[in-house]
Amino acid sequence: MKRYEEHRNFLKSNFDEFKNIKTDKMKGVPQPTGFKNYDLSSDIIELPKVHKEIVKKLNIYDCINDRRSTRFYAEESMSLEELSYLLWATQGIAGNNKAGLTLRTVPCSGATHSFETYLFILSVEGVQSGVYRYLPFEHKLLSMYKLDEIGNKIDEITLDQPFVPNFAKKAAVIFAWSTTPYRSEWKFDVTAHKKILIDIGHVCQNLYLASESIKAGTCAIGIYDQKKIDELLELDGDDEFVIYLAAVGKKKE
Amino acid sequence: MKRYEEHRNFLKSNFDEFKNIKTDKMKGVPQPTGFKNYDLSSDIIELPKVHKEIVKKLNIYDCINDRRSTRFYAEESMSLEELSYLLWATQGIAGNNKAGLTLRTVPCSGATHSFETYLFILSVEGVQSGVYRYLPFEHKLLSMYKLDEIGNKIDEITLDQPFVPNFAKKAAVIFAWSTTPYRSEWKFDVTAHKKILIDIGHVCQNLYLASESIKAGTCAIGIYDQKKIDELLELDGDDEFVIYLAAVGKKKE
Repeated sequence: MKRYEEHRNFLKSNFDEFKNIKTDKMKGVPQPTGFKNYDLSSDIIELPKVHKEIVKKLNIYDCINDRRSTRFYAEESMSLEELSYLLWATQGIAGNNKAGLTLRTVPCSGATHSFETYLFILSVEGVQSGVYRYLPFEHKLLSMYKLDEIGNKIDEITLDQPFVPNFAKKAAVIFAWSTTPYRSEWKFDVTAHKKILIDIGHVCQNLYLASESIKAGTCAIGIYDQKKIDELLELDGDDEFVIYLAAVGKKKE
Repeated sequence: MKRYEEHRNFLKSNFDEFKNIKTDKMKGVPQPTGFKNYDLSSDIIELPKVHKEIVKKLNIYDCINDRRSTRFYAEESMSLEELSYLLWATQGIAGNNKAGLTLRTVPCSGATHSFETYLFILSVEGVQSGVYRYLPFEHKLLSMYKLDEIGNKIDEITLDQPFVPNFAKKAAVIFAWSTTPYRSEWKFDVTAHKKILIDIGHVCQNLYLASESIKAGTCAIGIYDQKKIDELLELDGDDEFVIYLAAVGKKKE
């Protein structure tokens, strides 16, 4: 059992360690920006305004009760309205608090929000297949590049393991969340990393439930080829890298 | 930035490492039980059957939109019906899948469900203040021991940090989730630990949303005194230890 010890310690609260640390915030280092910049000449897609009427399965009780990890999807596109709703539910901006911190639709330790949302779009009405990035403050999509055979590529990146069936190529969209850990390390130093993992769980659970509410299904993917996915998303793999994936598609009736 | 490197690596997918590992499952080691046993002579409290009518804020859109981390609660008890609903929403048993694995109301990598739910009950109608454990298969509460001054004790365990206000003593109940990591290590070996943290995030997000749906509020607590909380819950701190906490109380109007 010894070989697990180091990993198990990572799950614990490093309360004592934190008490003795001077974080970059405490040292007066300026706070890093809470979002990734983009070239203003980029190809930007407007997202439809999110409205309550998109929800088909209204009652949260039913959404919690009926949610299952879904790996088999209907041969049906998602609408851009539906995608817009899922992006809002997972990383949408919900306002500011009294301290001026940006709030999102998901809780995050210290409101440090270290995540960016990338999308591999396979089948969304009116949107070309390709790789996109969500711009939460503008609630828009930034088009990164056109990509064919996305399903095969994602299957290759996630499939060489016995417990993941080949389902990415049937999905309508694959969410890939990256973290920029310094946004949280600035405030929490070495205690940031446990928080970042818990926080991406918060995000993904909203994806599960919001999907259920529009009769779509989700399956999260925790093991993947780190290097290949980071390359595909043009991430440096150190200051920013993928942390979690989830496939989404309309449910079979 | 070097000192973060090891921690950052923990956030990544150890895909290559996993490919070369023979897990205990692969070695034919019997699967550990997926729940903690209890003495049949224990003091057991029946929980009311969970029903949809408990939900006051029906629409999941509103629950996602309105949820905020809530640190100030009304001077009002929770009902046992409400607590029963929150336990169901976070760790309730939802059935079995075709492979015979137990499903819960939250997704979990490989359905390994390594969590136990402990409650510090401060103010729930008809229940004595004290420490309890949720029995998900029976949907009952096991009474561990009576405890006074719970709020002060939890505040002490979580408060010696600048960013947590003193709120535990006003909550109706404090959830404390432990992990028994071997339940997941058996199947995922050294890749288990990242999954465990993400999975407890899934759990806590359901607590946030289910709380919102009954006009209660939640605030998760990520930093705490590991040794003191484990002692309070009679956990050995190695094979089972606390991983995350959340306070819940009725919202002020």
